[in-house]
This record gives sequence, C-alpha cells and structure tokens, in this order.
Amino acid sequence: MTSTLVLLRHGESTWNAENLFTGWVDVPLSEKGEAEAKRGGELLREAGALPDVLHTSLLRRAISTANMALDVADRHWIPVRRDWRLNERHYGALQGKNKKQTLETYGEEQFMLWRRSYDTPPPEIELGSEFSQDADPRYADLGADLPRTECLKDVVARLLPYWESAIVPDLRAGRTVLVAAHGNSLRALVKHLDGISDDAIAGLNIPTGIPLRYDLDENFKPVNPGGTYLDPEAAEKAAAAVANQGR
Amino acid sequence: MTSTLVLLRHGESTWNAENLFTGWVDVPLSEKGEAEAKRGGELLREAGALPDVLHTSLLRRAISTANMALDVADRHWIPVRRDWRLNERHYGALQGKNKKQTLETYGEEQFMLWRRSYDTPPPEIELGSEFSQDADPRYADLGADLPRTECLKDVVARLLPYWESAIVPDLRAGRTVLVAAHGNSLRALVKHLDGISDDAIAGLNIPTGIPLRYDLDENFKPVNPGGTYLDPEAAEKAAAAVANQGR
Repeated sequence: MTSTLVLLRHGESTWNAENLFTGWVDVPLSEKGEAEAKRGGELLREAGALPDVLHTSLLRRAISTANMALDVADRHWIPVRRDWRLNERHYGALQGKNKKQTLETYGEEQFMLWRRSYDTPPPEIELGSEFSQDADPRYADLGADLPRTECLKDVVARLLPYWESAIVPDLRAGRTVLVAAHGNSLRALVKHLDGISDDAIAGLNIPTGIPLRYDLDENFKPVNPGGTYLDPEAAEKAAAAVANQGR
Repeated sequence: MTSTLVLLRHGESTWNAENLFTGWVDVPLSEKGEAEAKRGGELLREAGALPDVLHTSLLRRAISTANMALDVADRHWIPVRRDWRLNERHYGALQGKNKKQTLETYGEEQFMLWRRSYDTPPPEIELGSEFSQDADPRYADLGADLPRTECLKDVVARLLPYWESAIVPDLRAGRTVLVAAHGNSLRALVKHLDGISDDAIAGLNIPTGIPLRYDLDENFKPVNPGGTYLDPEAAEKAAAAVANQGR
C-alpha cells in the first residue's frame, strides 16, 4: 500500500516582496502570492492529486494559500487541521528587519550562518516587542514551548511530533494529505522523508506554489525520493533562479 | 456560566443574484457576497465577538464567507469543523430552476408551499441529473442519509444531532462558537434555540452577512431571546426589505 502526501509552500507574501525577515509575523500574501496559490490549485486539479485532508500552520500566508488552492481544485470542503508546529522557523530578533540592512550590519558570514546553518539560531526576540508573539492568543496554550528564536534543527524537533501524531495517522487511513506550510517547516519535513544530512539540507529550496507530491510506502518512506513536482519545468526554473542569486 | 454562539449567514451567491433555486448546488459568492462576508468580519472584530472555533457546512458559499470574515477579524487560524448537517436545505427537483419560472409553472400556492411550509418538500431530484449530489465525493460516506429533497422539518431533524454532538461540546468548553451556514440551516437552529413554533418559523428571515450573537445559559438556552445582531440597523433594514417583497 502506498499513500500520497502533497507539500505546498505558500506563495509570495508582502514581506517577501519587501525583503524583510518574516518568521512568525503574520503577514498576508501579495497579489503575486495569491496568483501562485491559485496556480497551485490548478496543478492539483490537473494532476488529479486531490487532497482528502489539509494540514496548515497558524499563519495567514499558508492558510490563505491552502484556501485559495483548494477552492480552485474544488476541495474547499475537506477537513482542516492547523498547528503551530507547521509554522515557519521563528526568526528571533531578526523578525521585521530588512535582509539587506541585516547583511550590511552583521556581515556576510554571520548573516549566512543565521540563514543557512543547521543549528545556529538568531538572537532571541525581546518579549513584548513589536514582532514578538508572546501576547498572541493563538499561542496562548504553548507556555514554555513558545519559541523566541529557532534554527532549522529546532524546527525539525518541533515538527516531527506533529508528523508522527497527526499527519501519519491520516496517511495510514489512506487519505491523500495536503500540507500547506513554509520554506523551513517543509524543509524540515523533506529532510526527514528523504533522509537528508544536516549539512546538505540548507542547499534544498522548495519553490513556492508548486505542489510537491510524495508517494510513500507502508513505512511512510518515499517511493519517489525527492518527490515529484506537479509542474517540473516551473520547479526547475525556480531552482535555477535561486542558484543564480549567489552569482 | 454563559457561552457565546455567533451565527453568520453567507453573503449573496451568484445564483441568488440570478434568482435560481440553489439548495446543495455548490455555487460561489458574488462580488456583493464577498463584500458582505468581509463586512461580517469587521463586525465581529469591532464587537470583540472573536470566535474560538468555526463550524461550517460543506458548501463553498458558507466556507468562503467564513474564511473571508475570519481573515478580516484576524481569527483565520482557529480550528474548523465542516459538516453536511449544516448545509442549506436540499431543494430537490427545483435545484437549478429559475424561481420566477417555477412560480409561473406551478402557481403561487404550490410555490409558497414548497418555499415556506414546514413539512412539504419539493419533488425529489432525479439521481444522476445535473444538479444532483449523488456522485459528489464529499457526500460519499452518507449512503442512505443523502437527501434527494428536504423540507425545513427535515433540516431540523438532521441538524439537531450535530448541534448536540459537535457544537454544544465546544460551547460547554467555554469556546465562542461561530456557525457559518445558510438561510434554512440557521433557521432550523434558531427555531430550536428560541423555541419557535412550526408555523411561525417560516416568517423568520436571517439577513446575510450580519453576525447574530446568542448568549446562552448553562442549558444552552438564550439569555437574549432572538439573539443580538452586531449591526442592528442593517438587520432592521434587511428585515424591512424582505417584508416589502410581498407587496
């Protein structure tokens, strides 16, 4: 028996467009991001990859992406589960800061360490500050679990219990599962699925708005390692664009 | 201890605008309907009537209304439950038919009996016909429960088990509950809450897009019988408009 998991990274947000560190700040999709979400829904529909259940984060950009994609795919009526464990990586004190300015202030090495190292989190966010979530009612039940910063290793650690306790049971029941989430929470999930090393995972970029389908065996390991993008050409273009950013 | 229940009837759909019987046909909101949904969200926010959990039908017009209203009220992240028992009344063989033509074909008496009697359903819809739901995957588990037509009495009968088993437990847990649904499923719920007679319930019209708040006592009976509209002026205008339709 195989089961089907579809990952969908949210479309562009207004802060992506403005080049700000976002993390847990709850910004909306940009117009481009909304178009990406709808295109994602068309791809689901065209591929017949129709989700039976949706899992999202508690952040608007993932929730809206899922709502729009599912509406286009005529699956707006499926059950939904939302959990903070699918949230984007918490970016600590960098949340709300301009990326270019941060690079200039701290230098390339520190900047890349925060962005791409597996286990070096940015400085903690100050409680009560503008972009902190300590007064946000959606996290009121978290108590000491509420992060003040996270590295990717932290994201893996808080995501895997949700994978095991909430997503795997849906897959086991034979449901096609859509996970609509974020660059780093999906990176953490793909790291687990494909057994990617701590060093190599930083090099993996999941493009926005292009559903990534995994066919999983009875142990929930990929039959198609790396997954299958529902629009492989667009995914390749997106990967090339990311590679060129460094030049 | 009191608990708070907020009812929200979906905004105008494209078929409302075209004067067609809709029932379980899954049509989208019109632009006016989207604006109504967003206004509903503003009213929730302004009144501080912030839902902790959402219950909707399986129909797009209620789901979209809830998504848009909750996004505006900054409660897009709350848990969601959807159930066919909150669906609009199934309009049987009338689904997809023009209301004016139906009135002309069958005459005023028969037409009003189907629209407003408590216990006379329209003729059953033909299985496999264009506007039937027998092949719709979202209802695949219903089996013999799938309606082919309904009167309001049928809606009450299928809604109350959901009220007791799904909504009341949320209220008992102290959650503010939002129910985003339809003219007749909300009528059925209000009939139960306010103890309205079978004869009188047809005269009750819940306006679209204006949240209706009930404060419930420990037996889940209204402390404020009839509920409180979050925009009483707009609700009064809407009621007057309905009353004038008959002149």
